[in-house]
Amino acid sequence: MSEKYVIGLDYGTLSGRGVLVRVSDGEILNSFVYNYPHAVMDEILCETGEKLPENWALQVPHDYVEVLDNVVPRLMAESGVERSDVIAIGVDFTSCTMLPVDENNVPLCELDEYKTCKYAYAKLWKHHGAQPEADVINALLEARGLEEDPRFGGKVSSELMVPKAMETLLDAPEIYEAADEFVEAGDWLTRVLTDSNDRSCSMAGYKMWWNALEGYPDADFFKALDPRLENFTSEKLPGKLRGMGERIGVLSKVWADRLCLAEGIAVAPAIIDSHAGFPGSGVSRPDQMMMVLGTSSVMLALTDQPYSRYGVMGGVRDAIVPGWYALESGLACVGDLFGWYMENMLPASYEKQAQAEGKDVFTYLNEKASARKVGEGGVLALDWFSGNKTPFVDGSLSGALVGMNMTTRPEDIYRAMIEATAFGTKRIVDLYEAHGANIAEVIASGGIAIKNPFVMQIYADVLGKDISVTACDQAAALGSAIYATLAAGSANGGYDDYTEAVQKMSQPMLTTYHPVEENTARYAKLYKLYCALGGKMGDDVDEIMHELRKICD
Amino acid sequence: MSEKYVIGLDYGTLSGRGVLVRVSDGEILNSFVYNYPHAVMDEILCETGEKLPENWALQVPHDYVEVLDNVVPRLMAESGVERSDVIAIGVDFTSCTMLPVDENNVPLCELDEYKTCKYAYAKLWKHHGAQPEADVINALLEARGLEEDPRFGGKVSSELMVPKAMETLLDAPEIYEAADEFVEAGDWLTRVLTDSNDRSCSMAGYKMWWNALEGYPDADFFKALDPRLENFTSEKLPGKLRGMGERIGVLSKVWADRLCLAEGIAVAPAIIDSHAGFPGSGVSRPDQMMMVLGTSSVMLALTDQPYSRYGVMGGVRDAIVPGWYALESGLACVGDLFGWYMENMLPASYEKQAQAEGKDVFTYLNEKASARKVGEGGVLALDWFSGNKTPFVDGSLSGALVGMNMTTRPEDIYRAMIEATAFGTKRIVDLYEAHGANIAEVIASGGIAIKNPFVMQIYADVLGKDISVTACDQAAALGSAIYATLAAGSANGGYDDYTEAVQKMSQPMLTTYHPVEENTARYAKLYKLYCALGGKMGDDVDEIMHELRKICD
Repeated sequence: MSEKYVIGLDYGTLSGRGVLVRVSDGEILNSFVYNYPHAVMDEILCETGEKLPENWALQVPHDYVEVLDNVVPRLMAESGVERSDVIAIGVDFTSCTMLPVDENNVPLCELDEYKTCKYAYAKLWKHHGAQPEADVINALLEARGLEEDPRFGGKVSSELMVPKAMETLLDAPEIYEAADEFVEAGDWLTRVLTDSNDRSCSMAGYKMWWNALEGYPDADFFKALDPRLENFTSEKLPGKLRGMGERIGVLSKVWADRLCLAEGIAVAPAIIDSHAGFPGSGVSRPDQMMMVLGTSSVMLALTDQPYSRYGVMGGVRDAIVPGWYALESGLACVGDLFGWYMENMLPASYEKQAQAEGKDVFTYLNEKASARKVGEGGVLALDWFSGNKTPFVDGSLSGALVGMNMTTRPEDIYRAMIEATAFGTKRIVDLYEAHGANIAEVIASGGIAIKNPFVMQIYADVLGKDISVTACDQAAALGSAIYATLAAGSANGGYDDYTEAVQKMSQPMLTTYHPVEENTARYAKLYKLYCALGGKMGDDVDEIMHELRKICD
Repeated sequence: MSEKYVIGLDYGTLSGRGVLVRVSDGEILNSFVYNYPHAVMDEILCETGEKLPENWALQVPHDYVEVLDNVVPRLMAESGVERSDVIAIGVDFTSCTMLPVDENNVPLCELDEYKTCKYAYAKLWKHHGAQPEADVINALLEARGLEEDPRFGGKVSSELMVPKAMETLLDAPEIYEAADEFVEAGDWLTRVLTDSNDRSCSMAGYKMWWNALEGYPDADFFKALDPRLENFTSEKLPGKLRGMGERIGVLSKVWADRLCLAEGIAVAPAIIDSHAGFPGSGVSRPDQMMMVLGTSSVMLALTDQPYSRYGVMGGVRDAIVPGWYALESGLACVGDLFGWYMENMLPASYEKQAQAEGKDVFTYLNEKASARKVGEGGVLALDWFSGNKTPFVDGSLSGALVGMNMTTRPEDIYRAMIEATAFGTKRIVDLYEAHGANIAEVIASGGIAIKNPFVMQIYADVLGKDISVTACDQAAALGSAIYATLAAGSANGGYDDYTEAVQKMSQPMLTTYHPVEENTARYAKLYKLYCALGGKMGDDVDEIMHELRKICD
């Protein structure tokens, strides 16, 4: 039998990427990126020039289609692979990126009637216009004692599906009315390709409070938010829910022709982009945790029981690995914090010295900081410069630095910031392990994992676990391709088993960081102080952070 | 009657200054500085080349005499003032700078027998070799419940007279035995000039636990420290105690000839150098507080009752103004902290921009920071980078920064540090006012007071009080000259009354900063948070600071 191939599509914030991958060994034959022509509309609505409110972030759904047209035929043409050897397509997408569509799956913004209305466009995951609606929802959770309900995971964010839909209902009821459905952009794309109206349980679970046992929250809950929302889930979110590993539909003839593929091949349910990195970075076993370290961080680990609380989401089975629940949390800023330091605190003398030695500032400062023993600098930081997700679910918390004296040097501050993000990570790992996860090893990806060995060694020392860094820099796209092989199944040249698929297709590890025992012991003491400073023992400090924001009121 | 003149001598850490001052209006006719040839011996003992232990700081007493010989005759010669018109000499000196002398007031280090022994030299105020002895004393205070005794002011510092003498007893008992007395360098100098063996109550009160009602601590206390110390005060510290405003003696014939002055003129008791700035900066009324803002800060205010606790010393009457008690405290770092910021946190981009605009970095950053409203930056700092003196008397406490997020800019951090020192100052003022001081106005001197209007306006806003900055940049030397006029008295062409002397002789104010009401109201909120972060409510934070120092243990 000839080699079989799959296509992985990875839809990010500014562009879409496509990869063509060999099923037998996961080799990426080629990879193309297409930038969304309208990128992110966060200042004006392109169609009208209308100025958008602050915190808005919209996209044009047709840009997603242009990715298909520009990337997939090119993958096929330049690889020389026969269309009959491509057995499936997988898709990952930012989430919750959602849009209103008519009964034919046409985005309302593509209809003449609505194209001048900003509410008719796709609201990108980082659209934050729905904070008032999130506040209303949180008030209801509090009033009903639902904060402990694992479905909601504590407080809800304005980035979720319901706040975004509710914002449209309140501000543009005509659009809400006109919408036959609201769909996740990832689900919308699989609908375009397949004509199947099913939805992925990935987005529904993490962004729409769905789980297999109870479905969505009941009508009474929605009615309490607004009487017009009573039947929100049945009216606006119809469609069967599909788990990862299943197929959501098959490629239509129209799109098969348009993309130079064969009609009827499997299409996998869309998955949240960062979650696609789970198989893509090579996480094949339940005792491995995935960690993406970029501007912020994402951590995913498997467990056999649902758990959602303290900013951890993990209430839905099959959302990443068939048969398992997946816990998700992360830090709101990691690389962002290091970047902030470099821009706002790195002294001129250090920048000059780095230049004189022909080093970039990170390398220079890593060398300085690594000359210190653990704890020697005497500085402790809180990494909450973009608020805290786990365990406080509080965006208004802020950063802190404690312990400076006249002998404190820049490398002590910088190192304390790195350590703070490692402690924040350990806090999440501890919570995961207290709720069914059993983590023997961490698989890391993302810019920092690849570029900053000093940071990675600190993480290994703090966590007391091996951290392997994947060599694959397109983990999400590869992950989507792996889900495509499961959607196809072995009968069609793919795989039936998640573990087998990942072990066959994942790429080698670049390197592994092993914890140094002495450092781990010292970090345990510092971690205790980190928790004391930021945690329950530090409630008055939290209060100070909140009060600090009110001085100008 | 012709104009009369006095000489003020100001002995600092590295040099001695002399000024010739007109009695009628305080005009400084001329001023010369002479650097101590041996400066501070903190690495080797000059006589032998012996390496000194860490934290040691010694001086050569003969250097103090060289100041007399090099400065006073020159003051006379270059001013053209008749020697018969100079009516008195006043002296201020660093303290506790102490030395062992023989029965003829000759420093032991000038005797062949002892000149190779480091314990025979003057221990400078910042000699920190006696920390083990200070620890022993503090343990005794704790054991006897004497921490509340106003005489000791809570914990004692290694800089005081007894720890320094006790260090000599324990490490070099032959020097302790050979010492006929231990004297403050200021007292030693008035002995040189006058042959009077009296001591000043200034140093005895603040550095040797003396007060007029009870004298020194009793023999039983000293015996508990070490049996050999039982009669320490009667054997090693004889001499009548003199208050400020009195005279300690008259100039001897030998020294009159040597200095080109008249025999028999009054010499004032020596005063602690920073305290001489009290009259010297123009503080004439009991409702005025003196504040010196330099690398660290000193604050002095008058009260009619003794008070010593929480790092405030104020147990002795007449130590600054006849008839009054004077409260003393201050911050361990002010200018030092701003300097630390500039060296360790000012980003390269700001330094470059300041250069491009032809401004020094302080001016540039002040402009940036002053564009913020009070509280707008959202950052709160603790100024304890060199520990905290009031209220915690704890050198192991450290600095903190709280409230940073991704929008925080360097000027927010810098401004928070300035504000923290202002809050630390308010804390001391509040304590003063709770114990008999009634402060309507602050008279400021020191480098920061003169050079940094942005800092001064913040202090005025935080304190809610007018702050006037004296135009006199030789306030200590002028203050010594004012004490000289009191030692002379009106019968000899001086003054009898402190207030009259200061009002006649003090120099005009450079400028006055008035608090802005709106800022003061906002700062009251921030101050509450500052106290919460650092104070009793923040005990767990203190604990963190202590634990942080132990990670490497």
